[in-house]
Amino acid sequence: MRTLQVDLGERSYPIYIGGGLLAETGEYFERHNLAKKSPLLIVTDEHVGPLYLSKLETSLQNSGYRTISKVVKAGEKSKSLEVFEEIMTTAIEGGLDRHSVVIALGGGVVGDLAGFVAASYMRGVKFVQIPTTILAHDSSVGGKVAVNHRLAKNMIGAFHQPEMVLYDVDTLQTLPERDVRSGLSEMIKHGLIWDKSFTDWCRDQSDKLLDLDPESLVYGLTLGCSIKAQVVSTDEREHGLRAILNLGHTLGHALEATGGYGQFLHGEAISIGMVAAAKIAVNRGRDQSIYLVTKDLFERFGLPTTIPSQMNEDDIIAAMMHDKKFKENQIIYVLPISIGEVEIVNDVTADDVRHVIQELKEEGQHV
Amino acid sequence: MRTLQVDLGERSYPIYIGGGLLAETGEYFERHNLAKKSPLLIVTDEHVGPLYLSKLETSLQNSGYRTISKVVKAGEKSKSLEVFEEIMTTAIEGGLDRHSVVIALGGGVVGDLAGFVAASYMRGVKFVQIPTTILAHDSSVGGKVAVNHRLAKNMIGAFHQPEMVLYDVDTLQTLPERDVRSGLSEMIKHGLIWDKSFTDWCRDQSDKLLDLDPESLVYGLTLGCSIKAQVVSTDEREHGLRAILNLGHTLGHALEATGGYGQFLHGEAISIGMVAAAKIAVNRGRDQSIYLVTKDLFERFGLPTTIPSQMNEDDIIAAMMHDKKFKENQIIYVLPISIGEVEIVNDVTADDVRHVIQELKEEGQHV
Ligand SMILES: NC(=O)c1ccc[n+]([C@@H]2O[C@H](COP(=O)([O-])OP(=O)(O)OC[C@H]3O[C@@H](n4cnc5c(N)ncnc54)[C@H](O)[C@@H]3O)[C@@H](O)[C@H]2O)c1
Ligand SMILES: NC(=O)c1ccc[n+]([C@@H]2O[C@H](COP(=O)([O-])OP(=O)(O)OC[C@H]3O[C@@H](n4cnc5c(N)ncnc54)[C@H](O)[C@@H]3O)[C@@H](O)[C@H]2O)c1
Ligand SMILES: [Zn+2]
Ligand SMILES: [Zn+2]
Repeated sequence: MRTLQVDLGERSYPIYIGGGLLAETGEYFERHNLAKKSPLLIVTDEHVGPLYLSKLETSLQNSGYRTISKVVKAGEKSKSLEVFEEIMTTAIEGGLDRHSVVIALGGGVVGDLAGFVAASYMRGVKFVQIPTTILAHDSSVGGKVAVNHRLAKNMIGAFHQPEMVLYDVDTLQTLPERDVRSGLSEMIKHGLIWDKSFTDWCRDQSDKLLDLDPESLVYGLTLGCSIKAQVVSTDEREHGLRAILNLGHTLGHALEATGGYGQFLHGEAISIGMVAAAKIAVNRGRDQSIYLVTKDLFERFGLPTTIPSQMNEDDIIAAMMHDKKFKENQIIYVLPISIGEVEIVNDVTADDVRHVIQELKEEGQHV
Repeated sequence: MRTLQVDLGERSYPIYIGGGLLAETGEYFERHNLAKKSPLLIVTDEHVGPLYLSKLETSLQNSGYRTISKVVKAGEKSKSLEVFEEIMTTAIEGGLDRHSVVIALGGGVVGDLAGFVAASYMRGVKFVQIPTTILAHDSSVGGKVAVNHRLAKNMIGAFHQPEMVLYDVDTLQTLPERDVRSGLSEMIKHGLIWDKSFTDWCRDQSDKLLDLDPESLVYGLTLGCSIKAQVVSTDEREHGLRAILNLGHTLGHALEATGGYGQFLHGEAISIGMVAAAKIAVNRGRDQSIYLVTKDLFERFGLPTTIPSQMNEDDIIAAMMHDKKFKENQIIYVLPISIGEVEIVNDVTADDVRHVIQELKEEGQHV
């Protein structure tokens, strides 16, 4: 088991990563002095609930906690104000008070949704994340919580840091293969923005990671979380540095939106986005190897690196313009300088992006 | 014009109180370096909008700001997630970005609603309060913002401090008389919890205040805001001292809920609540004068001090039990020690409250 501290002054919290943690949740809650008199609310989804909810409830109840739970539909559609309001109803009817804790048991969807409930219920109660996807090593660190508006993703939310993150890697064994690859995409991103040697490690360990080898997972997730934690500690509210976490996301989000959030998983979309960012960097004069290494890396993980030929450039560009990362009509773009190092620029034009979309569409047809 | 500073570290902000401020809004925005490239969103209601929206827009536009606006229905019903979502739609369609400012032009309803929009849009943008009711001297200070859940008031919200409060007392001249009295009830409360000499001043000035004499209003609102600001500076997130602001509110909220939010205005309900708190204190051994002075004070302002005989004790007590102020099934009650000084106790029983409800019902029948 590994412990990592996210340094945010009085909002600092630990991340525990290891096997068998779910069954010890009650003890972790006691160790963190979480109130026993007030009921706890567990939010999970219909895939994760049947697998892990009763184990979690049992552990908490054995330590003397009262729990209520809400199981939402699996998938991005649950990150809505409607489902948010339903959970609020459960919370009020269940008698949650200011000392209650909201627990997210699941992937990034449940984490973002339950986190916004915790941020807003009675103007904020405590929050604990129990991530069950690889992608959630990213979403559970940093305190960004949100629901979607029908016009744009993650538009309504808050910064709300958890009390702790309990990452039981055993739960990852039941994760569908496509979600495994998608989650590893964010892990690789953390190498690409911050640490060349971690990128090399990811490449060397690709088979073990895809096979969900526990030791490799614990190491990779710890490194990934730790990079994210370092970035977030420096810039909690994304005034500057934190933007580097958006490598691959400007185009990635646009691809997700254009594909109607059904075609690509998040990790798949940003895999293409990171390859595109490498290509843009090369087109602007960086060494060609940046693109080749990036592309090869994602291919090893079975992640997409080209854009389907039937997707329309104009649609993708239009979707990009709606993104939160647009500041006064300028594109804020994260580009690699080399493997393990990025820069934030504001002079990438819509035409530069259009051009690289065309290149990645052509690339796809050569295969 | 008076300026008051709310001391909250890096979240500190000024309150400007005086006449003619609305027409100078643009200059205040420039002085506070609020971004001109991003559109501003003004939220107001259908009573206030026709009176003051165009004056505000003109001032901002003369200083080079672009504005969009959303006019909601007047009244408590607009403090809902549905209206919140509508405003989010206006914001997204209007192209609000992270540098945009949300402005509340109106009373406490618009302030709470627009404030929660500002707290949540893209995880938080800047917020400016332009209060147009007397009650809003209370609601615009302290950063509490919220919408209601159908099961309970102010259940979904955040702490989000404004950049500044611009209090143009000229706008108060159009306020309906009942809202004038209701707002003065919170002003008197600030005296009762903190400052006997301010309480005496309020009693002496009752006629001038009810006549909306500008000089008395500026003084009274400044004192009221300043007491609230001092309390909030000590305890921003209501872990302790801030609870004294709830004098009269435990019973007051229950009366509002039992009356279906139509019978009593907020200030009327807490007027009864403060008289009841004085009576409970006397029943527990405090000097009888506390009750007499409190009752006389509110009567001078034409505010209710008894409970209508047709209201049912059990309904009121049941409503009280749903309140956020209930902590682990104990009633947290604010009681006067003397005029200008209160204490927070947790041993007032439901029976004590039932008894005082009966007393205030009888008192009403003697009149
Ligand atoms: N807050 C942040 O900083 C942040 C960062 C990145 C992504 N996100 C958000 O995270 C979301 C994506 O997260 P995700 O990929 O974890 O999606 P997810 O939560 O939808 O999980 C993916 C799928 O796997 C299922 N699942 C989860 N755990 C499982 C397990 N252990 N066994 C079997 N099935 C399991 C889920 O039911 C779902 O069907 C997006 O909404 C994205 O916006 C947030
Ligand atoms: N956030 C806080 O700390 C806090 C504190 C106290 C109260 N509140 C909230 O404030 C709300 C009550 O505030 P309120 O009493 O200002 O109610 P309000 O906003 O509904 O205003 C009262 C009425 O007066 C009208 N009005 C407002 N200004 C006017 C003007 N200048 N001329 C003519 N008409 C005008 C409004 O349209 C409305 O009909 C409640 O929702 C309460 O929960 C919040
Ligand atoms: Zn991501
Ligand atoms: Zn009040």
